[in-house]
Amino acid sequence: MENVVIIGSGPSAHTAAIYTARANLNPLLFEGMMAGGIAAGGQLTTTTEVGNFPGFPEGITGLELMLKMREQSLKYGARIQTSTVDKIDTSHKPFQVFSEGIATQTKTIIIATGAIAKRLRIKGEDNFWQRGISACAVCDGGLPIFRNKPLAVIGGGDTAIEEATYLTKFASKVYLIVRRDVLRASKVMQKKLEENPKIEILWHSNALEALGENSLEKLVVRNNKTNEEKTLEVRGLFYAIGHAPNTIFLDGQIDLDESGYIKTIPGTTQTNVKGVFACGDVQDKIYRQAITAAGSGCMAALEVERYLTEQK
Amino acid sequence: MENVVIIGSGPSAHTAAIYTARANLNPLLFEGMMAGGIAAGGQLTTTTEVGNFPGFPEGITGLELMLKMREQSLKYGARIQTSTVDKIDTSHKPFQVFSEGIATQTKTIIIATGAIAKRLRIKGEDNFWQRGISACAVCDGGLPIFRNKPLAVIGGGDTAIEEATYLTKFASKVYLIVRRDVLRASKVMQKKLEENPKIEILWHSNALEALGENSLEKLVVRNNKTNEEKTLEVRGLFYAIGHAPNTIFLDGQIDLDESGYIKTIPGTTQTNVKGVFACGDVQDKIYRQAITAAGSGCMAALEVERYLTEQK
Repeated sequence: MENVVIIGSGPSAHTAAIYTARANLNPLLFEGMMAGGIAAGGQLTTTTEVGNFPGFPEGITGLELMLKMREQSLKYGARIQTSTVDKIDTSHKPFQVFSEGIATQTKTIIIATGAIAKRLRIKGEDNFWQRGISACAVCDGGLPIFRNKPLAVIGGGDTAIEEATYLTKFASKVYLIVRRDVLRASKVMQKKLEENPKIEILWHSNALEALGENSLEKLVVRNNKTNEEKTLEVRGLFYAIGHAPNTIFLDGQIDLDESGYIKTIPGTTQTNVKGVFACGDVQDKIYRQAITAAGSGCMAALEVERYLTEQK
Repeated sequence: MENVVIIGSGPSAHTAAIYTARANLNPLLFEGMMAGGIAAGGQLTTTTEVGNFPGFPEGITGLELMLKMREQSLKYGARIQTSTVDKIDTSHKPFQVFSEGIATQTKTIIIATGAIAKRLRIKGEDNFWQRGISACAVCDGGLPIFRNKPLAVIGGGDTAIEEATYLTKFASKVYLIVRRDVLRASKVMQKKLEENPKIEILWHSNALEALGENSLEKLVVRNNKTNEEKTLEVRGLFYAIGHAPNTIFLDGQIDLDESGYIKTIPGTTQTNVKGVFACGDVQDKIYRQAITAAGSGCMAALEVERYLTEQK
């Protein structure tokens, strides 16, 4: 019987592993085998340079940061299993975690399976992913390749508007590509947007194809009412069409919000099931940064510790 | 007029500085001049090795980690002022921040002034601080010098009991030194405590003096009813008598809880004054780790960003 099983491989999962390992709880971490379609290490492994993780003034690649965290988990005694959890059973205690047909019994579970930024899968996208195409303006918007260049954002919600507004600090111009003729964002945000001289909204528009040499240089856009096509000279394309939290495997056993994120009691990592905790992007659709994920991983570990002490 | 003034010098302050600087908000950070009695860098500068900050498998000293974060803030353009903020005025906008008689006007304030673990100032304490005496069992309890050794915890609240219980994983025995003949902790926690064979409670007791060669070896304790003194052979002494958040300079302008911590809306860093945000230990009496503080510093920065966009 395990004290704690951690599901995930990003900053929140490994911070939870480091803390529970140091607390002698002998954690078992399932890092998954291309779970959610990305390598162990999570979304950070799909970025290049990470400049905003505190403690690395010289910068560090996402992959390198995750390898360091993994090494730290192992150093303190966490056991890491490279297989994907496909089911859990929290209907009675001990809980059960299933991976590759094998059931593991555990007193507590920390879910840190993250989320994946949705992509449109337009033509050329794979060629320019992280070479001009990104799903996080806050992470990547300040990179030198985007400075004083025209950029494009795709989306019509609050995040899209925030990202477009954010990018106007760096860009010479920002195109906001909106599928319909309305925005889902609040009125006040729309007003800001329309007043911003650097932003041009392209209504009824779909992105079709990304073009360029070594990095993104052009984006073909089609008006879905007139079918007119035009080519934007943009050096950056930011998807702001939402994220998909990796919660399908929970199969309704943990309460989710309307977007599929795990509901936690605000300011904690507690889910509706006592003994099951959630941290990182799988329960955060607001901040979504490596450092906030890591912070919540620590919280989950301390809450597991407290829970186990009370249950003893 | 500043966009954002950050008050503090620990992980939360610098993470807020890194994020707001990268968002082109040109933050001004007051790191203080021995503010709260400790050097710039905050409580981490009073620790030695930090093993649980994710990203540093080889460990890093608290001072080194804070120097790296400070360098990162500067790299992205944060301005750092080495003087202590002694007053703020949030009664009207723009807010004012006062340091050494000079007023700075600002649109937003991030308060990240931290907290300080209370100490008893017993004889010999300064000699063995971080050489056997600590104020954080979670941080330091797993260090090799404490393994299989008798340890002591001072305090009678929930934290004291949690820390004593936590230390039984490593220690051969844990003395819990309680000033009165009752604990302030919950009944269920007391029961766990009394059932733990490794814990011995010393009621009506005060620690008097720490003794040793290069590190703590003995602790003199006096029974405050009988005046009987005895010497405990302990290699570790952990204060669990609470923390004092650095909030006195706020002079009642920001809502505090009954222990003096800044109240924030759970799951955010928003205080009761719109445009004033709080992060790190000054608003956290539960988790209090470097990584949770850093995470909340990032949250504050993103909330400042959003607030300024909405106000524009």
